[in-house]
Amino acid sequence: MNILCLDLEGVLVPEIWQAVAKHTGIPALKKTTRDIPVYDDLMRARLAILHEHALSLDTIQDVIAGLAPLAGAVDFLSWARCRFQIAILSDTFYEFGMPLMEKLGHPLLLCHRLVVEGGLIVDYRLRQEDPKRQAVRAFHAMNYRVIAAGDSYNDVAMLEEADTGIFFDAPGGVIAQYPDFQAVSGYDELAAALEPLAEV
Amino acid sequence: MNILCLDLEGVLVPEIWQAVAKHTGIPALKKTTRDIPVYDDLMRARLAILHEHALSLDTIQDVIAGLAPLAGAVDFLSWARCRFQIAILSDTFYEFGMPLMEKLGHPLLLCHRLVVEGGLIVDYRLRQEDPKRQAVRAFHAMNYRVIAAGDSYNDVAMLEEADTGIFFDAPGGVIAQYPDFQAVSGYDELAAALEPLAEV
Repeated sequence: MNILCLDLEGVLVPEIWQAVAKHTGIPALKKTTRDIPVYDDLMRARLAILHEHALSLDTIQDVIAGLAPLAGAVDFLSWARCRFQIAILSDTFYEFGMPLMEKLGHPLLLCHRLVVEGGLIVDYRLRQEDPKRQAVRAFHAMNYRVIAAGDSYNDVAMLEEADTGIFFDAPGGVIAQYPDFQAVSGYDELAAALEPLAEV
Repeated sequence: MNILCLDLEGVLVPEIWQAVAKHTGIPALKKTTRDIPVYDDLMRARLAILHEHALSLDTIQDVIAGLAPLAGAVDFLSWARCRFQIAILSDTFYEFGMPLMEKLGHPLLLCHRLVVEGGLIVDYRLRQEDPKRQAVRAFHAMNYRVIAAGDSYNDVAMLEEADTGIFFDAPGGVIAQYPDFQAVSGYDELAAALEPLAEV
């Protein structure tokens, strides 16, 4: 029995922080785990910038409300949901992710939480350390075979722990650093890689 | 962070085997875990009856294709999906459950598999022993608080293991046997019980 674990940003929806950077005109917010592999370093930098510019959660949620899933993502997900059980494993926060889940038809989202005080994001709470690897382990503990697809450094633990790990639209540098994983480009190639693993 | 674990049959959709019993006119197929609490005993009895009557998987799938979710189930699930991450924990089989998942908008379904040979169901494979309890444990291992709702004996382990366990439209006998769990009747009461636990 199979679970398909998908990363969210860059795989099904745009990078949220890059959209915020564009909307607010703050280029420093463009950095992702592709630029700063250690997630806490990245988040501390983001929170400092939000504080400096007094950017509220409401402002960021307004930007997110304007985001659409990536072109083809909804169709891909519809295809995948008929063939696999799906879990979205993301390093985003429920406060950011839930409006996007609505646009994706509410798949299961496993991610983190923000700490918000007076409308400002003051901190964040990871669900647990090494969350994507732990989620794959939990599905293994339920006797599932896990197939995982992601696009960046923060997906590597998930891809390593999964029975099958696939890079989806990952940058060349990331792919080169982890040559053991199959790398696909676009939903057609991803579906072609997944199809032989479908059971239902 | 919360996960809401819901039983399937009797909570969101009709009892599948009872529908098959009605359609085929074989009253012995009406028995559920409410009648025979030990699941393997129940399943061995069902398989023997299918064999005796040469009932194929196709025939059963035709019956399932005609089933609709319980009245109000789709609306309840839409409400719940905006407030919780949802996992359906069921003792059905993917071969039976997937057409029903389509009607429910493809929530995550954790269940079992049939063994089918020549179109006939010859055996079944539980995902694991004590599957509903193990699933709750796995979500706990992911640092989630688990809220669970079910209607029968095979849900008791899930309700026990969860942080909050709720009987939904359970028979009086089951409720009386496990008086520690809150018992609600209908989706309005279930939503009222869940609302204070919602975070998003």
